[in-house]
Amino acid sequence: MAMKKFINDPANLTAELLEGLIQACPQKVALASEKLVVRAKPKDASKVAIVTLGGSGHEPALQGFVGEGMLDISVVGDIFAAPGPPKVLEALRQVNREAGVLFVVLNHAGDLMSANMAMDLAKAEDLNVRMVLTHEDIAPGRDAPDEDKRGLVGCVPLYKIAGAAAEAGMSIDDVCRIAEKYNANMATLAVALKTATHPQNGEEIFELADDEMEIGMGQHGEAGTGRSQMMTADETAKTMIEQLVLAVDASKGDKLYVMINGAGATTLMELLIIFRAVKKALAEKGIEVARANVGEYLTVQEMGGFQMHVAKVDDELIGLLDAPCDTPFWTVR
Amino acid sequence: MAMKKFINDPANLTAELLEGLIQACPQKVALASEKLVVRAKPKDASKVAIVTLGGSGHEPALQGFVGEGMLDISVVGDIFAAPGPPKVLEALRQVNREAGVLFVVLNHAGDLMSANMAMDLAKAEDLNVRMVLTHEDIAPGRDAPDEDKRGLVGCVPLYKIAGAAAEAGMSIDDVCRIAEKYNANMATLAVALKTATHPQNGEEIFELADDEMEIGMGQHGEAGTGRSQMMTADETAKTMIEQLVLAVDASKGDKLYVMINGAGATTLMELLIIFRAVKKALAEKGIEVARANVGEYLTVQEMGGFQMHVAKVDDELIGLLDAPCDTPFWTVR
Repeated sequence: MAMKKFINDPANLTAELLEGLIQACPQKVALASEKLVVRAKPKDASKVAIVTLGGSGHEPALQGFVGEGMLDISVVGDIFAAPGPPKVLEALRQVNREAGVLFVVLNHAGDLMSANMAMDLAKAEDLNVRMVLTHEDIAPGRDAPDEDKRGLVGCVPLYKIAGAAAEAGMSIDDVCRIAEKYNANMATLAVALKTATHPQNGEEIFELADDEMEIGMGQHGEAGTGRSQMMTADETAKTMIEQLVLAVDASKGDKLYVMINGAGATTLMELLIIFRAVKKALAEKGIEVARANVGEYLTVQEMGGFQMHVAKVDDELIGLLDAPCDTPFWTVR
Repeated sequence: MAMKKFINDPANLTAELLEGLIQACPQKVALASEKLVVRAKPKDASKVAIVTLGGSGHEPALQGFVGEGMLDISVVGDIFAAPGPPKVLEALRQVNREAGVLFVVLNHAGDLMSANMAMDLAKAEDLNVRMVLTHEDIAPGRDAPDEDKRGLVGCVPLYKIAGAAAEAGMSIDDVCRIAEKYNANMATLAVALKTATHPQNGEEIFELADDEMEIGMGQHGEAGTGRSQMMTADETAKTMIEQLVLAVDASKGDKLYVMINGAGATTLMELLIIFRAVKKALAEKGIEVARANVGEYLTVQEMGGFQMHVAKVDDELIGLLDAPCDTPFWTVR
């Protein structure tokens, strides 16, 4: 059976999708070199720069969030693969500045290895870079060591918050403090319903029976916390939000930011119905949804399912979420 | 086999998804009454109001585009079904004003019947409403009568353009002239790859073999212009853009607005690769892509495929596309 995707040579997927992105949004993004997506109008060098890295195939993440008020550079890898350290070093050199560079890395083996090697090289060159590692997946359990926890969609609101802090002219100390505050207060849990096809090798990423779902699955099909029969939207939402509330230690009077991130084939209709149930479950606990986003931010091809992300937020973080930004796939007026 | 969707009682889908929408974006949208989505901050009554109607199940369309610079009210029907005339009349009454109301209707039998009945009632009450009917599907052929052509995703950029004209304080005559100009210069062609499940009855919307695609299929599975073997992204894009260029009579030196609208399960990766091929094919003809949007605007549940939409644009229309807007799913700074 032929792969049912609109593609050309599988070897060129990343190059072609990046070309499409910068041609669709030439006012916002550009290619500095192969697989280095940068802002069309570079940020003033007096402000902290924000850099990230990660594999492609998760569109709009990560390169769809390059632009005013979010990322300065996204170093793009091949489909589901980390970019190599030389490319990352090239990005860090390009935005190195007295004001400093914040480098946001998601905890996945390949990404972290590349990032650590690039950081060593950057230090040897006296580049002014600090790294923040996201690892907010709660599927391994509350007490699992940080290194076992994957970085999921939480990086995206973190880019928003750190990017707004940088745009406001905050120092690298403040931008790092704010990024680490969000990092320490966030948690994500994924659920999978249907597999997706790897667009290069045509293989299904995982298998799941016709009546099953799996909570806790990673964004490349990594095993979760166990399979169950399909539940309703309300049951699914309640099961997941209970674990997330515990993970961020939220209680009556607290404010949460909530993101419901579609994996690819799960409809916005469903995501909105899930969000409604989350909001209701939180209201019953006296927890306020201060801000929310529902949509596709970090996908896994046409996988069915979603990631539920929450973060305990204060007025400083809410203000940064509300700040203007202008990227291909997240715009705030 | 259970339906693999995160839903509750299928009878409550529309009510629940609308509740989720207004709770996720309370700064932007509100419910005036059941299934009547309005702006959270009503537009000044001195400006023309924009109203539309249509079934749910196509999220983010149509109600995801209510807000500053686009729609004032979206009258929402049940899944894939038109709302009844009384609800439409309620909406028209609510925004009736001296400045006038533009009522945008997509050509689908149920929508048009409801709209025509509501317009008759509105005229009997002397409401100041004018209707624009979209029918830009080119699948029935260039010479098919307008009544045979469906309204596809072209309504969404039309909301953007008419909404910006209204926000700028233009008269109802000018807002209508601009809406009709866009309407007369746009064309859309859809392609389907994989079916979707109707979320209320659990039935598949259509059938398509494992190695087939169908160009021209409507957004509820209506038959297109014939099935073919799967083609590459570049071949698909070229086949479709050739027909669209003919339909809008574009030639060297012309400027086009292009939208690649994902049907649901087709990845943004693929849509960007398609857009790249469209841009290249147009460049070879000396036609400029003046502005573009790539993403999910009007979906058909988790259907695989996309709608390719183009419109011949001049500086007036480009300026209106660039104007600020602030809705749940289309924001321009």
